[in-house]
Amino acid sequence: MPTRTPMSGPVIVDTTHSPSAQLRPVPINAVTLTDEFWKPRRSLTRELTLKAQFAHLEDTGRLDNFRRAAGDLQCEFRGIYFNDSDVYKWLEGACWALADTHDSELADMVQGVAELIERAQAPDGYLNTYFTFDRSDQRWTNLRDMHELYCAGHFFQAAVAHSRVTGEGRLLAVAQRFADLICETFGVADGQMEGAPGHPEIEMGLAELSRATGVTRYLDQAAYFLNARGRGIIGGGAYHQDHVPFRDADRLTGHAVRALYLAAGATDIVAETGDQVLNAALSRLWNHMVSRQMYITGGLGSRHQGEAIGADYELPNAQAYAETCAGIADAMWAWRMLQVRGDATYADVMERALYNAALPGISLDGTAYFYVNPLAQDGVPEPGSSIHQRQPWFGCACCPPNIARTLAQMPGYLYSVSEGLVWVHTYAANEAILTLPEGLTVNLIQRTRYPWSGQVVLELLTPGEYGLNLRIPDWCGDADAGDAPSLSINNGPCRPTVKSGEYVTVRRTWSVGDTVCIQMPMPIRRVRSHPAALENAGRVALMRGPLLYCLEAVDNPDVDLRDVSLPRDGQLSSSFRKDLLGGVQIITGEASEVVHDSAWSSALYKATPSEAQRRPFSITAVPYYAWANRGAGAMQIWLRQEG
Amino acid sequence: MPTRTPMSGPVIVDTTHSPSAQLRPVPINAVTLTDEFWKPRRSLTRELTLKAQFAHLEDTGRLDNFRRAAGDLQCEFRGIYFNDSDVYKWLEGACWALADTHDSELADMVQGVAELIERAQAPDGYLNTYFTFDRSDQRWTNLRDMHELYCAGHFFQAAVAHSRVTGEGRLLAVAQRFADLICETFGVADGQMEGAPGHPEIEMGLAELSRATGVTRYLDQAAYFLNARGRGIIGGGAYHQDHVPFRDADRLTGHAVRALYLAAGATDIVAETGDQVLNAALSRLWNHMVSRQMYITGGLGSRHQGEAIGADYELPNAQAYAETCAGIADAMWAWRMLQVRGDATYADVMERALYNAALPGISLDGTAYFYVNPLAQDGVPEPGSSIHQRQPWFGCACCPPNIARTLAQMPGYLYSVSEGLVWVHTYAANEAILTLPEGLTVNLIQRTRYPWSGQVVLELLTPGEYGLNLRIPDWCGDADAGDAPSLSINNGPCRPTVKSGEYVTVRRTWSVGDTVCIQMPMPIRRVRSHPAALENAGRVALMRGPLLYCLEAVDNPDVDLRDVSLPRDGQLSSSFRKDLLGGVQIITGEASEVVHDSAWSSALYKATPSEAQRRPFSITAVPYYAWANRGAGAMQIWLRQEG
Repeated sequence: MPTRTPMSGPVIVDTTHSPSAQLRPVPINAVTLTDEFWKPRRSLTRELTLKAQFAHLEDTGRLDNFRRAAGDLQCEFRGIYFNDSDVYKWLEGACWALADTHDSELADMVQGVAELIERAQAPDGYLNTYFTFDRSDQRWTNLRDMHELYCAGHFFQAAVAHSRVTGEGRLLAVAQRFADLICETFGVADGQMEGAPGHPEIEMGLAELSRATGVTRYLDQAAYFLNARGRGIIGGGAYHQDHVPFRDADRLTGHAVRALYLAAGATDIVAETGDQVLNAALSRLWNHMVSRQMYITGGLGSRHQGEAIGADYELPNAQAYAETCAGIADAMWAWRMLQVRGDATYADVMERALYNAALPGISLDGTAYFYVNPLAQDGVPEPGSSIHQRQPWFGCACCPPNIARTLAQMPGYLYSVSEGLVWVHTYAANEAILTLPEGLTVNLIQRTRYPWSGQVVLELLTPGEYGLNLRIPDWCGDADAGDAPSLSINNGPCRPTVKSGEYVTVRRTWSVGDTVCIQMPMPIRRVRSHPAALENAGRVALMRGPLLYCLEAVDNPDVDLRDVSLPRDGQLSSSFRKDLLGGVQIITGEASEVVHDSAWSSALYKATPSEAQRRPFSITAVPYYAWANRGAGAMQIWLRQEG
Repeated sequence: MPTRTPMSGPVIVDTTHSPSAQLRPVPINAVTLTDEFWKPRRSLTRELTLKAQFAHLEDTGRLDNFRRAAGDLQCEFRGIYFNDSDVYKWLEGACWALADTHDSELADMVQGVAELIERAQAPDGYLNTYFTFDRSDQRWTNLRDMHELYCAGHFFQAAVAHSRVTGEGRLLAVAQRFADLICETFGVADGQMEGAPGHPEIEMGLAELSRATGVTRYLDQAAYFLNARGRGIIGGGAYHQDHVPFRDADRLTGHAVRALYLAAGATDIVAETGDQVLNAALSRLWNHMVSRQMYITGGLGSRHQGEAIGADYELPNAQAYAETCAGIADAMWAWRMLQVRGDATYADVMERALYNAALPGISLDGTAYFYVNPLAQDGVPEPGSSIHQRQPWFGCACCPPNIARTLAQMPGYLYSVSEGLVWVHTYAANEAILTLPEGLTVNLIQRTRYPWSGQVVLELLTPGEYGLNLRIPDWCGDADAGDAPSLSINNGPCRPTVKSGEYVTVRRTWSVGDTVCIQMPMPIRRVRSHPAALENAGRVALMRGPLLYCLEAVDNPDVDLRDVSLPRDGQLSSSFRKDLLGGVQIITGEASEVVHDSAWSSALYKATPSEAQRRPFSITAVPYYAWANRGAGAMQIWLRQEG
């Protein structure tokens, strides 16, 4: 058991002093993962992923762009004008990765990058390596497209992480100088210019910088940028979330990542201000998203064109865009809503997105990434293309450092605290030292094989009176009556009614060694989608616990996966395969391949009914997050269901 | 009965001297439409549409660009760099519209434009109003993107039409000067440059110019451009049909209009050369298209992104792109394949595309156009958008003059001739004077209410021995056995076996006044699509004769059209509504609206089965070509079918 007492330290998003947030996050280093799922992934992120990404930052000129701005190098700016943001996101991820583990190689990289950033800052505080030298006079001339404020926001998040993890104030001071310049530049006062960012992110960055520094002006500026939207300053387009004031919006629109970052930033503002009009807008956006726009993965973005959210229920599978960053952004927004509202529905979506939308973005070996995340794939590539596979890097490389920082943050997603309460949002074996707002520090051990098993045992090492708020996932409600979730304390029955989709509160005077056991049965679920999601008509997706499953050609050879059909009452079972994909619970069972009337081989439309034959075979499904790790091939999530 | 004998005159595509074409088209003015469907549309095209388009060409600077190039105006080039093509397409359409009818206003416009074009030509023959003055030295520097050869191709088609209709050789001489320059510029000889057009069209234009002038060099140049593809000259992308030599291609790829124009141009080359390798490639492309890529409308292009053909069976409805020009291009290609091969399958697709993919592109009043043709529409617009409606013009205005020239050409689509044979491809009341290759001129009258009725009477006014090749549409094969198509001669039974999807040949010694009656029953058909077209799973589309039907909200109020369900054996009937949409046969019948479990109002995914209720109501379906002529609203083609 750890003996550290991390009274302060790194947190993902700080709401410690937020007047309107119900929950407070806990420091990342308050939670020591001991599990077989997230811990190895987080270690790989630190040991391999972030170092490989650093090499890419170096090789692609992203760091040279800072050296150039600092005057160390005479060369042209290389790459895309928003490439600074990749450096900042990497830096943030590297800091979180170092929050609880020493790694001198990574720490040296972090300090080198931090110094480079400091030296690249202009005397007046401006910081963007693209708008330097000849382009200095183009600063702030195209806020819609040129992403200066987006880069600034990522820098502020990185600077806060750096300050929390290293305890140093140098990079935070750089951030403050830049934030001060932004505050002076944009607004409605004489001598200021009006502005709104084409790509939101500054809102979250300024809010967090405000929390880290106590400077409320930064929060006000975040609110200014939010409120500047919908007045046509950046063109008035729904693509840029500028067609309507945010307070009046009824749904997310346009570019998925921008829409979600904006919603997350707005949630930060609600956490600090308690703005009830904004809060009501967030409810509308959230409810519309989860009932009309979100993939079963938790991902968003139905259209390749514009990387955009589509029409309601427009959820194509093979043609899904579902950018990895949008899946991460969904989890980020859900996390913030959860802190503000303390409602399990946000934890449900957060968990869904982390496992099924963010995690698929990186290969099991930690070195290759999906930018686009289709939910189905034909085994034959389109002419002139190859089959969709993870890539080691991208020209527009937003996703790789985004998934790295998310994995590095993972311990921070498990718990929050509030007055007298420890909140457990999602499960993973760990040892935690959690300080409640009133000062009590609760030590506990969590033992579980989650997400493979729904049995969780919490052992409390701190005596005293306090409560546990334990999330019972919404997916428990999909189980049969006999399979209801349950709770026991010290192996005995327990008073509170356990309802899925809610936090169950267990409040008592604990003794050292008391245990709480949560049983969340994990039957295999056949999930249907809304009838208006046309591609899924007559189909089901297999889920177990928080995980979405898919069929891959490698496990189901010689079958057209699109034509796999499950008998309505057919037996499906699951078992753990230690040797497969780093260890996964697979699903197997009887199914059939629908073999169509041969007329369909040459016809696309016909009026005469046709007879389909069924060829029985046994399916093997694997977690969707692990797909495409064994070569290129077909993949299918939504399976036909007979009858 | 007409007494003219149009031995020569305008034809859409001339194969009169083509060594490898089985069929020869007939002059447009050999066929005098007398019907209630196409004739009024063609008249409206001449009287209103083309004149309104002329005003748009004038208002948008497209004609001023020619005046500028001619030195009449000192101004900047206006609009998009390929805007010349709109002028050429308009000119071609106006010429065909004048083929058989005098209209001095339109004729004056035509002559004015023709003179302007002539005067805009550079001394060396070059003609493109964008690459003039300062931009002269940028000629041919970016064949992939700048559409110079595309514009040239449309000019050649217009020049041929102008020459055929006016009998003047002036514009044809302008075209030859430009074509000569192109032939000198591009090729593999010393001093020539290699090149391939990013947007095909020059192939058709050069082939037709070769036929009109007898200059085989132009045909050779068309073949050069075709064969230059697939070698990476324009980047090697499937989007530009450059990923593989055309002869090796197995499917259409990339930008739909480009792919189809290229296939049509290649078919022209096969018609002239009999190239069997190319001919085999065309078979592969065609078979792949009709079995994997084509909408039920005959349109193509599944993706907004890149206006592109998608993956096999990727056929979204609400998100269809299906550019009007692609529907027209499909008919253009089918027409050429038909002339080369004499196989009814090409006439089937041509007819499908003309009625259901080209015609929806223009409003019933002849003044507004669809660029994009969705096959379903939600009644609620996306935020920041309005509901999809036809527009009076577009910045990129390829579709309006394209539909105008297609309607102007319509008489030319009905017949072809070959040795001793009159081919009847599609039906419409008309009087025709058709000269067979051996010199016999056959006068005939066609009486029918097609497409509303499948009864057609041909009255032969020319005695003698010759044959009729009458197309029995493939859709007749969808009828029940009792509803088989049949033929009678002089009201008596008739020898030849009538098979749907084939031409039936009636060859005899005819007397004046002999009649042939074709009965093509037109039951309402419920057409299914291939199971891999996922959005259509469990759904049927209603068709009657060649026409596709749809539901519109205006006829079916207070119903979610996506949830309309037809009983499997429910009665559907059709009746003619003279007052509606210019006179249409409507389909009515019993259906129900599926009213979903209320849980679906807030859920997008759930594992618990739900019960749907059915609310019976009576549907009214109208031809798809006529949709969106009564204001903005929801529309649906594919309807659920029970059981």
